[in-house]
Amino acid sequence: MIKSLMMDDSLMISGILRHAESIYPGQEIVTRLVAGEIHRYTYQQLGERTRKLANALLEAGINVGDTVTTIAWNTHRHLEAYYAVSGIGAVLHTLNPRLHPDQVSFILGEVKPKIVLVDTTFIPLIEANLEVFKSVEKVVVLATQQELPDLPAPPELDLLVYEEWIASYSVEYEWPVFDELAAAAMCYTSGTTGYPKGVVFSHRSTVLHAMGLGSANGPGVSENSCILPIVPMFHVCAWGVPYAALMAGSKLVLPGAGMDGKSLTELLVAEDVTLTLGVPTVLQGVIDYCRQKNINTPRLETAVLGGSAASIKLIKDTDEVLGAFLLHAWGMTELSPVGLANFLTNPELELSKEAQFLIQLKQGLPPFGIELQIWDESGKVLIGNPVERGRLMVRGPWVASSYFGISDSTSWEDGWFNTGDIAIRDEDGRYQLVDRAKDIIKSGGEWISSIDIENTASSSPLIVACAVVGVAHPKWGERPLMVVVPTDEQCSESKIKDYLEDKIAKWWMPDKIVFVESLPLTATAKVSKLTLRNQYSDVYQS
Amino acid sequence: MIKSLMMDDSLMISGILRHAESIYPGQEIVTRLVAGEIHRYTYQQLGERTRKLANALLEAGINVGDTVTTIAWNTHRHLEAYYAVSGIGAVLHTLNPRLHPDQVSFILGEVKPKIVLVDTTFIPLIEANLEVFKSVEKVVVLATQQELPDLPAPPELDLLVYEEWIASYSVEYEWPVFDELAAAAMCYTSGTTGYPKGVVFSHRSTVLHAMGLGSANGPGVSENSCILPIVPMFHVCAWGVPYAALMAGSKLVLPGAGMDGKSLTELLVAEDVTLTLGVPTVLQGVIDYCRQKNINTPRLETAVLGGSAASIKLIKDTDEVLGAFLLHAWGMTELSPVGLANFLTNPELELSKEAQFLIQLKQGLPPFGIELQIWDESGKVLIGNPVERGRLMVRGPWVASSYFGISDSTSWEDGWFNTGDIAIRDEDGRYQLVDRAKDIIKSGGEWISSIDIENTASSSPLIVACAVVGVAHPKWGERPLMVVVPTDEQCSESKIKDYLEDKIAKWWMPDKIVFVESLPLTATAKVSKLTLRNQYSDVYQS
Repeated sequence: MIKSLMMDDSLMISGILRHAESIYPGQEIVTRLVAGEIHRYTYQQLGERTRKLANALLEAGINVGDTVTTIAWNTHRHLEAYYAVSGIGAVLHTLNPRLHPDQVSFILGEVKPKIVLVDTTFIPLIEANLEVFKSVEKVVVLATQQELPDLPAPPELDLLVYEEWIASYSVEYEWPVFDELAAAAMCYTSGTTGYPKGVVFSHRSTVLHAMGLGSANGPGVSENSCILPIVPMFHVCAWGVPYAALMAGSKLVLPGAGMDGKSLTELLVAEDVTLTLGVPTVLQGVIDYCRQKNINTPRLETAVLGGSAASIKLIKDTDEVLGAFLLHAWGMTELSPVGLANFLTNPELELSKEAQFLIQLKQGLPPFGIELQIWDESGKVLIGNPVERGRLMVRGPWVASSYFGISDSTSWEDGWFNTGDIAIRDEDGRYQLVDRAKDIIKSGGEWISSIDIENTASSSPLIVACAVVGVAHPKWGERPLMVVVPTDEQCSESKIKDYLEDKIAKWWMPDKIVFVESLPLTATAKVSKLTLRNQYSDVYQS
Repeated sequence: MIKSLMMDDSLMISGILRHAESIYPGQEIVTRLVAGEIHRYTYQQLGERTRKLANALLEAGINVGDTVTTIAWNTHRHLEAYYAVSGIGAVLHTLNPRLHPDQVSFILGEVKPKIVLVDTTFIPLIEANLEVFKSVEKVVVLATQQELPDLPAPPELDLLVYEEWIASYSVEYEWPVFDELAAAAMCYTSGTTGYPKGVVFSHRSTVLHAMGLGSANGPGVSENSCILPIVPMFHVCAWGVPYAALMAGSKLVLPGAGMDGKSLTELLVAEDVTLTLGVPTVLQGVIDYCRQKNINTPRLETAVLGGSAASIKLIKDTDEVLGAFLLHAWGMTELSPVGLANFLTNPELELSKEAQFLIQLKQGLPPFGIELQIWDESGKVLIGNPVERGRLMVRGPWVASSYFGISDSTSWEDGWFNTGDIAIRDEDGRYQLVDRAKDIIKSGGEWISSIDIENTASSSPLIVACAVVGVAHPKWGERPLMVVVPTDEQCSESKIKDYLEDKIAKWWMPDKIVFVESLPLTATAKVSKLTLRNQYSDVYQS
């Protein structure tokens, strides 16, 4: 019996920082501060300041397994917190400030942070939840004394200023090595129903996920990349970019609070960004601004799109306005988050743009590390080529095994996580998400994909944005309702139906179309179909 | 105290095969059979046949931790053995057939394989070592009955034919999941002195190393790659390519026994190879053939060069003749093997070719996972920018922690592996290997780098190949001797010295230059400096 004889080095998040600092000391991190100015420093300076913060956290009594919560934009200081908190063995909890105050209060009650690091923007959120934050030992504002706003600080809170707090600590610190299965970070799923649910990442899962992101089949994160993560660092650790970028030695551009089209475009152009990542609404903001101002982004190669399905319009706009490839990806908080990414093969790169756009609508293939199955309702694995629609199940070393504090979740079956998505697998092997299981419409016993109708409709010049939801119907059980943000007043129900007529199955045609000024969004900037379903629950009941 | 809640899925080599088969079932593997013809099949067929082999191995009584030895070229059957043997929990041992019979006998005595899989080419090697192979339970020839040569099989051996052996077994098999630290494969370092030493890789180290190879900072192994590993699968698992390629879904081209310039070039052109990997002598064979026959390889992008340092001539030839980038890499069996790879940054890509070639002479940067230090003779870590020459020490999850069966090796100090290489780190952060510690020449208390002199000399049109070794000298301790394979009879000692005169330090000039028809090689096709030192040990003693 032969045993392996390899070093048993743990996969540590601090190992990423040590690698980055030692191999690419001069690589740049550019931040638009919340106060507006541009801040620049190097990986080496990141390393030094992160060790200062680690020493400050340790002296503040943060122990292994304690939680530190951040309520913060994408900045270098938030990045320092990412590495310092996990690096000393504590748990980084990134709070989504867009959550409802009840949800914030619920989460902080579960997480029980000892220290909260907060951007100036979110001080009012603390003031509005004073009762909850009173039990926190230290609230640290991520700013210099000069950057502080002229707000009267709530007297109940002993607000510390980050730059003054860490200033006196030593840059010397040896990152400890411990079990790679230790908790490193946690993030709550926004949860369209009920309370948010916590996912707790380990050092191992975080490092493996970052290696997966850095693969050449991924977005191609390398020393020659300049990456602008538009996705906030409070959304599933900005999709793992803060880890993958440093692992590969990429230049990193952090947009701070400036998430509008103008601010982001300025950074894209000025910093020669090659890769950006975000959700549809924010990417659309960049596209609209560039189109309006006739701005080119010649260095931008790839825009990774996740969070919601990409429409053909967005894929086309990304190509035509930004001159970039929209890399359609799919993930979930429970998947760290990356589950699928959609690339073109060499033969597909020879096809017409229009043919490519249609392929890009799919969500693609999983990286090594993610294992997928499609199950029917009874739990039977569906196989074949193509694979008919069913429940998308997933497992792998960066997939959650349960939610924090919930022992009886029904989301896991036989060791597989039920994504709650309905998917198919095409002849070309690609996965495509048909709908969220809870969003799919069941009409007269047959399934209608709300996403399919939305994708088709979004190509119409009549429509800025739209959503299709199933609404209870006395005869058919459910029928589709379409909610539309029209381009102008000329738009009408009959014009949209004319547009859709030859493009979707007859019985998929929404029975009604209603017009609104904007669609309701969730805390993670997705269209809130729950809100729409509630609002229009009785339109077919007459 | 918050604990992580992620799935504890093991990193398994069989997981790579399962991913490959399920995500890229139609991807192609092309083999030049040892008998000469081209064989093609898909990942799906690889998966099916590998499961047949697994069932055959299990029925033959192979248990967890048992060893199966291969003596084989790069073929699809060897690839099946890679995945089947490790997949069932046994240990794949790849024997280097170029080793001395004494070494073969020593290794097999240590490894004690139950089954040996052998290519027809190497049946004579078995016949010459019959005593050793008698204790093996099964010797299986990797061929069909038709492909068998007309050799009288040694009556002492019960030779099985691979294709007949596996034919009747089922394609159904569930790959077991077990501890990722279990032994998966082993390979012996050729060892220029003493007996070869065994390195035992784990599933974890193999998978992490493959993920490192697949990073965008690596050679860029992706679904769009077509990879021709020229490095034999009996050299450190072909540098991990059989794992990294399947992980990424790359097309794989396996050259069989055809390692000459003509055979390899035919495959490069016919299969649209984008990436190849090999040692200098074999790559030079391809270059010479392409130059002579005026053949272009337009799809080839990268040639990864390892095993020995690349000369400026080889870097230039790769650019000019093959139109490809020579990616200079460095590794060791003890490192699985990848330790360094040398890329150009965007600003460097703007430089002149000549300037780029000089940068390419260095060995580059480590991927995430490899940690390097340069130590002085007393074990003090040398830091600074640049870092002066010292001993290159390494650690990481795919670095060996000891040799098989040797408990008291001096190659490890304080948890670091001593590579035996002398290295510097330049202003640009790149590592460059100055010499093997045992090859460096110490003259009058000062160090002379044999590699530096060889690199300089190899650019001369007078020289086909050369090696510089240190030879005992009554006055200086050691002095350099240069051994040259000249281009023609016009070449002379004085002409070479004239060429070197302004290019190296005066006191580095070899005291003597001797001419030979060819340089002696080790079993891994490196120049054997040990042989040269022995042969010329007394040239300066007169």
